[in-house]
Amino acid sequence: MQQKNTPTDIDTLMAGIGRAARAAAAELAVAPSYQKDAALNAAARALRESVPSVLAANAKDLESARNAGRPASFIDRLALDEKRIEAIAVGLEEIARLDDPVGQVMAEWTRPNKLRFERVRVPLGVIGIIYESRPNVTADAGGLCLKSGNAAILRGGSESHHSSRAIHACIVAGLRAAQLPEAAIQLVPTTDREAVGAMLRGLDGNIDVIVPRGGKSLVGRVQEEARVPVFAHLEGICHTYVDRGADIDEAVCVVVNAKMRRTGVCGATECLLVDQGAPADFLPRLVTALLEAGCEVRGDEPTQAVDARVKAAAPDDYGHEFLDAIIAVKVVDGVDEAIAHIARYGSQHTDAILTWCTGTAERFVKHVDSAIVVVNASTQFADGGEFGFGAEIGISTGRMHARGPVGVEQLTTFKYVVRGAGQVRPV
Amino acid sequence: MQQKNTPTDIDTLMAGIGRAARAAAAELAVAPSYQKDAALNAAARALRESVPSVLAANAKDLESARNAGRPASFIDRLALDEKRIEAIAVGLEEIARLDDPVGQVMAEWTRPNKLRFERVRVPLGVIGIIYESRPNVTADAGGLCLKSGNAAILRGGSESHHSSRAIHACIVAGLRAAQLPEAAIQLVPTTDREAVGAMLRGLDGNIDVIVPRGGKSLVGRVQEEARVPVFAHLEGICHTYVDRGADIDEAVCVVVNAKMRRTGVCGATECLLVDQGAPADFLPRLVTALLEAGCEVRGDEPTQAVDARVKAAAPDDYGHEFLDAIIAVKVVDGVDEAIAHIARYGSQHTDAILTWCTGTAERFVKHVDSAIVVVNASTQFADGGEFGFGAEIGISTGRMHARGPVGVEQLTTFKYVVRGAGQVRPV
Repeated sequence: MQQKNTPTDIDTLMAGIGRAARAAAAELAVAPSYQKDAALNAAARALRESVPSVLAANAKDLESARNAGRPASFIDRLALDEKRIEAIAVGLEEIARLDDPVGQVMAEWTRPNKLRFERVRVPLGVIGIIYESRPNVTADAGGLCLKSGNAAILRGGSESHHSSRAIHACIVAGLRAAQLPEAAIQLVPTTDREAVGAMLRGLDGNIDVIVPRGGKSLVGRVQEEARVPVFAHLEGICHTYVDRGADIDEAVCVVVNAKMRRTGVCGATECLLVDQGAPADFLPRLVTALLEAGCEVRGDEPTQAVDARVKAAAPDDYGHEFLDAIIAVKVVDGVDEAIAHIARYGSQHTDAILTWCTGTAERFVKHVDSAIVVVNASTQFADGGEFGFGAEIGISTGRMHARGPVGVEQLTTFKYVVRGAGQVRPV
Repeated sequence: MQQKNTPTDIDTLMAGIGRAARAAAAELAVAPSYQKDAALNAAARALRESVPSVLAANAKDLESARNAGRPASFIDRLALDEKRIEAIAVGLEEIARLDDPVGQVMAEWTRPNKLRFERVRVPLGVIGIIYESRPNVTADAGGLCLKSGNAAILRGGSESHHSSRAIHACIVAGLRAAQLPEAAIQLVPTTDREAVGAMLRGLDGNIDVIVPRGGKSLVGRVQEEARVPVFAHLEGICHTYVDRGADIDEAVCVVVNAKMRRTGVCGATECLLVDQGAPADFLPRLVTALLEAGCEVRGDEPTQAVDARVKAAAPDDYGHEFLDAIIAVKVVDGVDEAIAHIARYGSQHTDAILTWCTGTAERFVKHVDSAIVVVNASTQFADGGEFGFGAEIGISTGRMHARGPVGVEQLTTFKYVVRGAGQVRPV
């Protein structure tokens, strides 16, 4: 194996990409907003002008995927059409319109010795994005990194490689038009998996953070092997707890939305907890509404007693991310058992309580240790756009630096600027 | 080696410490401020009441250190007396008086759909502190972790073990008096180095961050081997650049202070850069003042021409952390060469410019990528206390989460609390 020179070639290639990214990051960190926005808008224009070539590239990827017998859902994620390309272009323009986080003064104060302190936002540096076969991530993630002054190293799925290359060419055209370094957003030009390994090792200190975008196996591998910080969540095992203090009409709407609006997103509720002290109609109304919405309900004994269509929940249905029209339901002894259940089975992503009892809500908010805790609303609001962040590169369940939706602000760090007038420090 | 059961014993011991810390962290995270402050104040009282036993324990450590032929500086760091114990007790009381960061609302906003968002500070979780033979760190670091709602696992140097145990006993007495879990601040009861390895591996996910306190070799090992985030700086290679726009009287005072106030601290200036476009008296006045203050000056050719006492700088004197009364001096071609020198030789800790030309100062602030950038003041202000943070557990040159002085705020993360009135997310 030592004789095989492909790994060495890949390592050399990736090391060069890392160095180029670091050099570009230094330029991007001090690039003015108008220049970054000009690049984003020019990339959107280039994308609109390149619809035929992007579609032609996508057709190659689609053909390979069909020949490989990929399922329809995979093909759908991979497929581009004029409407989807337009959406990608609009997405870039929307990123251009976001406020530039770089240079924002996050805090300022003056000490008694008249030293003035500022905490100023600066980019993180170089961000590595490892994603599966959604070609739009090439533009979305690259655009968010650029806006926040970071260089991006994109490693897309091999099955969308032609599409990603075509989209990347448009982004490079945008960078060139704005006279920004082309290495600001690089696409790894090989589908060799060894390139991913090199990125996870951090390219000799030239990657500051890795963002994986894809399924659980990709995220799990990245979290396990990365030697640099990772912004991600492995699973979104979201709970909604309906307390005795809930408005049941409201709760029925919210629970059905939390589960069924989109079942494949990380903010979808996977487990419904119902207070056993709630009025007797709560559980049947919730279960019936879910069943009628087309959801499979897997419940404990009290839940099964509600409706013959309820299946018995297996122990591992709790703490399971279905990403489908299936929900686990359990009756719990009030808010404290709900909190304990979430601590045991949750994934610290997004958990909700429905109650109009303020004390109970505050108890839940205080004790549930999740990135997002929701009171009286749907867990499906777990999304950077809904938070007002404009766009997100993902949602993090990590405790360090970025937690919850990761938007342009979360792609920055800060430095302290201390301004004086000749102050010296007394002994 | 597999037969030797000591490592297994240590692993079992450390795993138990990790689990106990995690359980304690859950209680601390929701403990009210008054309870944490009561523990800190009770620990201070216990320390004052235990002066004889702490001194007796310290005497054992001192005897071993003297027998081992440790240098005077080591003995001095290790030695306690009544005054130093009183200072530790006062330090705990000062931490008690700091504002509690936990529960602070860092940001709040409302979206058009009337969902209200709050970003609320919460503790990081469990903090591992690995330190050398300064027994006071036991109280300082433990106290900062407690105040910020984190559990602490303290692993002190073997040579201060008796002293640390005696101080730790007082802290536990404080926790007990306030009815907080004793495992909130644990001291690793063994001096086996394998315990450090176990901490660096994260104790099965039961350590969220490691803070090393000690010399470069300790910090380097921790940064290299830790599988969890580390808050630290390896070196403080701080620069002061004197621009042509400086007030030379002010610059002389600031440079002497930046180098000589304390030469052993991480914020001490190690390299002076002087603008070649500055008036002819700048360089001689700066060099003479340093020499007269007792500093050895190692300079480039123009600097050597100033005074016969100036030694020739070797290439590796630039980028060297002397931690002593020695300074490297170089004449540079204006602010841009100063920025380039700092990018090449600095450690992204603290770097200063002295100038009254605003444009030059802003150029330096923008382009120098250090945790702390100082204008017209001494680099020795790099200190959490001087920043107004009350106390610090260290200074971080990392880009993620904590950068610059790490005080109680930096020992927290946040969660989002989203409050609604039955909102569901439209498709």
